Amino acid sequence: MTKIDHIRHFLTEEKAELAIFSDPVTVNYLTGFACDPHERQMFLFIYEQLAPVLFVPALEVARASKIVNFPVFGYMDSENPWEKIRKVLPNTDAKTIYAEFDHLNVTKFQGLQTVFSGRFENLTPFIQGMRLIKSADEIEKMMIAGDFADKAVKVGFDNISLEATETDIIAQIEFEMKKQGISKMSFDTMVLTGDNAADPHGIPGTNKIENNALLLFDLGVETLGYTSDMTRTVAVGKPDQFKLDIYELCLEAQLKAQEFVKPGVTAAEVDAAARSVIEKAGYGEYFNHRLGHGLGMDVHEFPSIMAGNNMIIEEGMCFSIEPGIYIPGKVGVRIEDCGHVTKDGFQPFTKTSKELLYFEG
Amino acid sequence: MTKIDHIRHFLTEEKAELAIFSDPVTVNYLTGFACDPHERQMFLFIYEQLAPVLFVPALEVARASKIVNFPVFGYMDSENPWEKIRKVLPNTDAKTIYAEFDHLNVTKFQGLQTVFSGRFENLTPFIQGMRLIKSADEIEKMMIAGDFADKAVKVGFDNISLEATETDIIAQIEFEMKKQGISKMSFDTMVLTGDNAADPHGIPGTNKIENNALLLFDLGVETLGYTSDMTRTVAVGKPDQFKLDIYELCLEAQLKAQEFVKPGVTAAEVDAAARSVIEKAGYGEYFNHRLGHGLGMDVHEFPSIMAGNNMIIEEGMCFSIEPGIYIPGKVGVRIEDCGHVTKDGFQPFTKTSKELLYFEG
Repeated sequence: MTKIDHIRHFLTEEKAELAIFSDPVTVNYLTGFACDPHERQMFLFIYEQLAPVLFVPALEVARASKIVNFPVFGYMDSENPWEKIRKVLPNTDAKTIYAEFDHLNVTKFQGLQTVFSGRFENLTPFIQGMRLIKSADEIEKMMIAGDFADKAVKVGFDNISLEATETDIIAQIEFEMKKQGISKMSFDTMVLTGDNAADPHGIPGTNKIENNALLLFDLGVETLGYTSDMTRTVAVGKPDQFKLDIYELCLEAQLKAQEFVKPGVTAAEVDAAARSVIEKAGYGEYFNHRLGHGLGMDVHEFPSIMAGNNMIIEEGMCFSIEPGIYIPGKVGVRIEDCGHVTKDGFQPFTKTSKELLYFEG
Repeated sequence: MTKIDHIRHFLTEEKAELAIFSDPVTVNYLTGFACDPHERQMFLFIYEQLAPVLFVPALEVARASKIVNFPVFGYMDSENPWEKIRKVLPNTDAKTIYAEFDHLNVTKFQGLQTVFSGRFENLTPFIQGMRLIKSADEIEKMMIAGDFADKAVKVGFDNISLEATETDIIAQIEFEMKKQGISKMSFDTMVLTGDNAADPHGIPGTNKIENNALLLFDLGVETLGYTSDMTRTVAVGKPDQFKLDIYELCLEAQLKAQEFVKPGVTAAEVDAAARSVIEKAGYGEYFNHRLGHGLGMDVHEFPSIMAGNNMIIEEGMCFSIEPGIYIPGKVGVRIEDCGHVTKDGFQPFTKTSKELLYFEG
């Protein structure tokens, strides 16, 4: 069954006539057409009974038409997109319409409501569920993205120096990745030294790398449409025993959660597996974020691995396991692998050592 | 009048009690607190009568509290953000509430509707209007961002070689910018050679730089919270006369529009000033996008400089003027400066020569 047939099957079951996709990543997932329309309009219309229609900005029509095998229509910047949509669609009478409520903004929603008078329902949970379980082909692409993340963090390690700033090392990492044909990192690369690493959302700057401190790398690449994401914390010089103890505690929590993952446990239980290690040691308040997040074509996607999420873990799910301990002014550690769930457990996409690595100060 | 007072004044005039901001860029514009909450919730509540409230993910509370001088509340990933909002706000009885419809997605909108039973109105036009006219301080920051764009394109020029690929040059540009402390480009840098430049949304790859062809650079940097954006097309080797003619035509159109800009003309007239030059020469169909876009904290913001937009141009507006001519398989040219409107006309933020520059093949 193709992905589009899968959507149609859902529409049949829900007695709905039309699904409208507005998230460019979902459009890419369903059609292979990758496009960021920025503030312009782009929609994929999948009918239960009729051929799909892709509606894009005029300057994307030629490229889109080469990729999809159904009608593509465009609109010029000077045209009213809603009038154009009404004109080009084979049918606007659907009584029940599913749309991506987590992506669609209110203005677009009101625009669509000028075209369709039917009742709108939320498509987000269904498409999240569909994207949640990765195929073997998708997992292969995520392994490749993971390999590149390992290479990227290695570039970072090779450039550690007390003369370098956080930004210098980031520049070097991204330069080497671009040279290897990576056009995009998954997110802004983070290199955080000393106190800056003790802020879970610290911002890299022109701080020189601190000696006798921990140094945190959080990065990922986007390749073949899929993302990676990893965090390693390493030692520069000789950090004091307290820092080393916090590192070991964080690693114990990370490994505990990783070993705990298998089909049938819940997301909340995975979170608790790591969190209980840190709480028992008395540092629970310093681990102030969820354990992990799903990833795939987006670096943050469904599900959240956190307390309260009783979703059952299944084979083919891909997510991060990233406990962190941030004690302001003292130490910051985070250790993260993303991986996929097999029948035997969690298979990380990244292979860089998690034993504490030491670099010369 | 502070920006927040400006919002309150608007609420008074509209007889509304509350404005809710969800766009992180607007929140930064109004408060100086820069944060990308990804899929988490972040809202700024500005009451007509009560103190504002900033609601952020728990791990951002400490940083936000240092920046804003009104109450900041956070929620943990495992908490229900809507219940938390109801609990922490001083008042949820507003009868009329303004929210950013161009940013707010339907799911968040429905979440807010569980907290507020009042009537929602669209705040986007007002905040767009407020952000539209830049202060002297904002223009100064945009000049700095423009200077960096000039530096970035110069790095590109210095790395032109028939041995280099598009991606190699991009890597070099972004590396040098990062070394100069730029943490973020405004968008993915584009270097497009030959036929690839003839696609208005061509994607850079491992194509080697073509000889006797045109080479297009489209780039910008983000600095001090503001963006720049420029395009230059240069000659490598000896492009044929047709390519040179198309270049000159595009330049004539760009300069024509730039000279035409002054307070009192309309956005549509500015577009027409450039478009008529290209149309008269018979290439109108190959200029298939609007002439320009506003920019500021976002690289694409209000207004569009295009047919049908009868907005009056005023002092302090900042936008791009970027005609392009794309003839598939033959040639692609785009020339772009962003600038601000003064009482005397258009002042570009970027100063790199627009006379065709030649580089050795």
